[in-house]
Amino acid sequence: MSKLRVHNLSLSIEGYVAGPDQGPDQPLGVGGERLHEWAFATRTFRRQFGGPDGDEGLDDEFAARGEIGIGATIMGRNMFGPIRGPWEDESWTGWWGDEPPYRHPVFVLTHHARHSFAMEGGTTFHFVTGGIHDALEQASEAAGPDDVRLGGDAATVQQYLRAGLIDEMHLVITPVLLGSGERLFDNLDGGPVGYKCLGLVSSESVIHASFVRDIDA
Amino acid sequence: MSKLRVHNLSLSIEGYVAGPDQGPDQPLGVGGERLHEWAFATRTFRRQFGGPDGDEGLDDEFAARGEIGIGATIMGRNMFGPIRGPWEDESWTGWWGDEPPYRHPVFVLTHHARHSFAMEGGTTFHFVTGGIHDALEQASEAAGPDDVRLGGDAATVQQYLRAGLIDEMHLVITPVLLGSGERLFDNLDGGPVGYKCLGLVSSESVIHASFVRDIDA
Repeated sequence: MSKLRVHNLSLSIEGYVAGPDQGPDQPLGVGGERLHEWAFATRTFRRQFGGPDGDEGLDDEFAARGEIGIGATIMGRNMFGPIRGPWEDESWTGWWGDEPPYRHPVFVLTHHARHSFAMEGGTTFHFVTGGIHDALEQASEAAGPDDVRLGGDAATVQQYLRAGLIDEMHLVITPVLLGSGERLFDNLDGGPVGYKCLGLVSSESVIHASFVRDIDA
Repeated sequence: MSKLRVHNLSLSIEGYVAGPDQGPDQPLGVGGERLHEWAFATRTFRRQFGGPDGDEGLDDEFAARGEIGIGATIMGRNMFGPIRGPWEDESWTGWWGDEPPYRHPVFVLTHHARHSFAMEGGTTFHFVTGGIHDALEQASEAAGPDDVRLGGDAATVQQYLRAGLIDEMHLVITPVLLGSGERLFDNLDGGPVGYKCLGLVSSESVIHASFVRDIDA
């Protein structure tokens, strides 16, 4: 059975995963890119985007773990692109250029149906209108023996947390204060419950916190 | 000039400083005591409460810093006791027994006047009805050349953050999920702004995050 795993989800000290005033020109909100500076510095992220060099070490180790044993990705529509409402046409193919770094099937949660399409390098995008359980079923099947990675946005992660479907969750606490924005731990109706912290470790830049679903809870 | 310093303020991963359903029997809310387990284990905290032993190391080092160079404390009424509204009588003298660990003047913010009184060991309690600026003025005067420490509850810290009066803030992020409760970073009207992170480091138990007011901001 595929696990559903969250990796490298960066939070400000206040728990924001994006800054205020998100929009097409500012997909991460005001100051939101500061949450990801640690990741941009790693070898793993630089390689994904064709860049040279990049730091090794603890941050890179965590960044790389998010790629291992993953056979499919689920993401919210806001992570796929800035367009809201019905698709005007099929020209938007994601933020990642012609060769997205996924290289496996990606399932985008949306209320608006759209045909699947393939990109260079093995990434295919599929659009799921049947909700989070449907997306997980399709992604698990596509992943085969591998796991499914869950991306953002926050609302998508909240839906899966409320449903208790996330098996492993790696959060990155950054030394950033954003003032306002979109919180990860909101709209949870008293959840998440039933998770335990497996590890808490600091690099020079950030803290890595790893949670798993607690089967004893 | 005295600095106003926050120390050892413990948060859950979601940013809660207390659990849900706070009340006289449960001053920290459901599960809230889990936020302070790291502190209860340190030599500094154990000594304050007359206990033996306790751990040294990074957590203890941070716990001890909160005692150094402090000449007065300000706290909200909810940290002083569970009573709300007018004081029925003067029998409540705090949570800390006959010899509170402060050993200096403590200024309690309240809407309801009450006479000052002295406890064993040097702690005096004073009740300030004039608001946060008044309390800071009185505490600074009482502290002399030393600094003033700001205690909880969250609403009190928020008031001082909104007013930009906190000079240094040490937060402790714990690997605890509470589900709901009282958030530190709420009611800030887009703040805190103008703080920078001086350090972020994890022990085996918790994350220590140190902020100072950024005079360049």
